[in-house]
Amino acid sequence: MKPPNKGGRGGPDPVSELTTNRLSIYLRALAALDKAGVRAVSSQALADQFHLNAAQIRKDLAQFGEFGVRGVGYVVTDLLRHLREILGLDRQLPVAVIGAGNLGLALADYSGFRIEGFDVVALFDVAKHKIGRRSRAGVTIHDIRHFPRLAKRLGIRIAVLAVPHAQAQRVADAVVGAGIKAILSFSPGGVEVPGGVKVKRVDLTVSLESLSYYLAQGDGHES
Amino acid sequence: MKPPNKGGRGGPDPVSELTTNRLSIYLRALAALDKAGVRAVSSQALADQFHLNAAQIRKDLAQFGEFGVRGVGYVVTDLLRHLREILGLDRQLPVAVIGAGNLGLALADYSGFRIEGFDVVALFDVAKHKIGRRSRAGVTIHDIRHFPRLAKRLGIRIAVLAVPHAQAQRVADAVVGAGIKAILSFSPGGVEVPGGVKVKRVDLTVSLESLSYYLAQGDGHES
Repeated sequence: MKPPNKGGRGGPDPVSELTTNRLSIYLRALAALDKAGVRAVSSQALADQFHLNAAQIRKDLAQFGEFGVRGVGYVVTDLLRHLREILGLDRQLPVAVIGAGNLGLALADYSGFRIEGFDVVALFDVAKHKIGRRSRAGVTIHDIRHFPRLAKRLGIRIAVLAVPHAQAQRVADAVVGAGIKAILSFSPGGVEVPGGVKVKRVDLTVSLESLSYYLAQGDGHES
Repeated sequence: MKPPNKGGRGGPDPVSELTTNRLSIYLRALAALDKAGVRAVSSQALADQFHLNAAQIRKDLAQFGEFGVRGVGYVVTDLLRHLREILGLDRQLPVAVIGAGNLGLALADYSGFRIEGFDVVALFDVAKHKIGRRSRAGVTIHDIRHFPRLAKRLGIRIAVLAVPHAQAQRVADAVVGAGIKAILSFSPGGVEVPGGVKVKRVDLTVSLESLSYYLAQGDGHES
């Protein structure tokens, strides 16, 4: 199901994906505190407020340095800045969305991306009648044939695949051929990529199945 | 970030969500083998072919019974049936999508859902001009005010929230009020629900941030 490479193009990736996923959650929690005017927070208070695990927070952060101040906890703005640096969010990352159907258009305009510095700079599609049109938020739809040229010109670093499953592998090959090293795929099946390219798959069915399991357990207990 | 309850309405949930997520992956792998005409497979062959971990497969499945046959491995169709039962997929689960914007329309027509028995039976929205219209695949958009009545009539078990963040909590309250116990939320923020209701959140930004981290590591090694 997963692509055959484990990522890590320039060397071993020292931190698991589960850890980086948790760093994303901490980032979101700290941003909320920052917005609310909170200046410092202990790992315990952070954990209590956002339903996280305090020991896990300390362990995760310790992998990247000494961020806590004894008796004070974490200084919110400092830790926010460090987390953004660690996650590579201290610069804009231009993103292209391939496939200008409902899903592609929704992703191009998804407000959550913009908040954290992901900048959807272009949509791509094969359908002639879509080319030149724009998403509601104003992202232009380009001809997929121009991807290599535009990827270079716009500095695209991440390609989001929102194409039908039957086209997913061909599109993945094309974006990898254009030098893209990071792909977020919404295709229900997997795509194969060469080593040095990382694919992250969002499998919406897995999420629904976890809810189905929960409901099945509940039904069992009721009957 | 997570809702305050840990799920488990009728009793303790004995299996972690990471396990059920892996069961979903095994299900997908076995369905692919079944389609290819494979009748039996060992945990090792399954692991090799789909980039999984053989020991983990054996451990996960052992929690639910004895499925392997010595010297043969797993009988594909049998294990498929067992996994579907475990995940509660041996019956149709009617799903409603709330929010008929691009994302909601994309989710209503998402082919991956249909494959595994999730049946999107209705879309809901507040916008008068959308009500009565249909998604491309033919799912009708209803007035959100009729949710309680239609949820009962259509037997809706899962609500998918594809509404703007500012509306997410209000909509979550409304669907919980109508008796829904399982919610899949695409809102960039969390929603709070009472105990006995499970929320699964798809945070698209977390996936992009994991790619950002990967790119940052690569850039670091290159510089």
